[in-house]
Amino acid sequence: MNEDSKAYREKKAFFEKIITLYGRNVVIEMLQDKSIEIHKLHMANSNKPDGAIKKILLLAKERGVAITHHDKNALSRISKNAKQDQGVAIDIISKSYAHASELQKLTSYRLIALEGIHNPQNLGMIIRSCAAGNIDGIILPKKNSAKISPLVVKASAGTLFKLPIYFCEKLEDTLRELNGADIYALSLDAKESLYDIQTSEKTIFVLGNESEGISPDVAKLCNKKLIIPMNRGVESLNVAVTAALLAFMK
Amino acid sequence: MNEDSKAYREKKAFFEKIITLYGRNVVIEMLQDKSIEIHKLHMANSNKPDGAIKKILLLAKERGVAITHHDKNALSRISKNAKQDQGVAIDIISKSYAHASELQKLTSYRLIALEGIHNPQNLGMIIRSCAAGNIDGIILPKKNSAKISPLVVKASAGTLFKLPIYFCEKLEDTLRELNGADIYALSLDAKESLYDIQTSEKTIFVLGNESEGISPDVAKLCNKKLIIPMNRGVESLNVAVTAALLAFMK
Repeated sequence: MNEDSKAYREKKAFFEKIITLYGRNVVIEMLQDKSIEIHKLHMANSNKPDGAIKKILLLAKERGVAITHHDKNALSRISKNAKQDQGVAIDIISKSYAHASELQKLTSYRLIALEGIHNPQNLGMIIRSCAAGNIDGIILPKKNSAKISPLVVKASAGTLFKLPIYFCEKLEDTLRELNGADIYALSLDAKESLYDIQTSEKTIFVLGNESEGISPDVAKLCNKKLIIPMNRGVESLNVAVTAALLAFMK
Repeated sequence: MNEDSKAYREKKAFFEKIITLYGRNVVIEMLQDKSIEIHKLHMANSNKPDGAIKKILLLAKERGVAITHHDKNALSRISKNAKQDQGVAIDIISKSYAHASELQKLTSYRLIALEGIHNPQNLGMIIRSCAAGNIDGIILPKKNSAKISPLVVKASAGTLFKLPIYFCEKLEDTLRELNGADIYALSLDAKESLYDIQTSEKTIFVLGNESEGISPDVAKLCNKKLIIPMNRGVESLNVAVTAALLAFMK
């Protein structure tokens, strides 16, 4: 029984680390990058063995990647994007992808938590800036956010698997569990500014969607406010730019 | 003769401040924003007097804006974008738009010069971040750069006319004329970093296109190097993010 539940937990933890991507160019890119661990390649039976498909099969064979074949509809259920999967999907084992409950084991962190970021370009840019900057990871809710998709991979410019991404269902549940953290919301009436902020051992910056900001439920859990001083009456910045400014604070 | 040449110069200076935008929604937005000075509205004769066109004509009448009518091809020569002008174009008089030769009159400035930024979203985001940050203006070459278009307006989120934009033909000619300025290129082998830079009275940061960087001719004119320290082996940032980090340096 104990054995079983341990095996179950391990299996669950394993599958939680899997990110499924799709599209021929993306799959080729993943297969060519030896630093990326691949769980499985999924192919639709309807694929004609043309140039790209031939190349994918050859690369998979060279790396000894397991291949499963599906009818077109089953493949689309795996990719979750029938329109853009082009009959191929790939399961990546991302070492940097973990459940947000893992954060409770850490004694110090500086994180960016996202809510309602639906634009994949913005999400990719945020990952890229945080990977390059002084941020230990991103908290990314599964609901009300862009999924990790080929567009995100592209905008992240190869940095997606370099930055820890902590996924959760609802951001408010994760924030509630992270006791003792300074949780910042951006606010035009904050006293603490980007230039004089004194961050503590555990710091989280919550960024919301540009048009709607963060939800009232999440706002309630923020215990600090931060202002990015702006000139010329400008009231807001692109969310990816805001993330970058936070990531590159001294 | 002097009078003539003065009149000519004035006329030239006036027309240099004109930015032509197009598309029905953008034209409506410009007509509705009273802070924006409008020179002229251009309409194609082929426009059907439907909802948007009716609204445009009404707004123009309310503001007393001059309207000229053209055949469809002539309108497209004005908009320079037959595919997207939707039969309407508008000439904006931008007080913040000036020839780069004006910079020679200034005794101090901190500028961002762009070369090869063709993505209108990036250009719009750069304008927005610089308008909000500590940058006195952008140097934007007419060649080898995105034009000020409705996509740029959208990405700038209403900040386009808040930030001085100094246009020039070729960036190298402008940089050569700005004697005595510290002209920075970003470089991974620079000693001076984003965190310890000592800027002088006249500082220009040159940003190039992400894939190709700045051209050799422009690189030769840069007399300083700056590094943005990056973690996790990341070697570059999105150009709009880079501009924002420079704009918000302390």
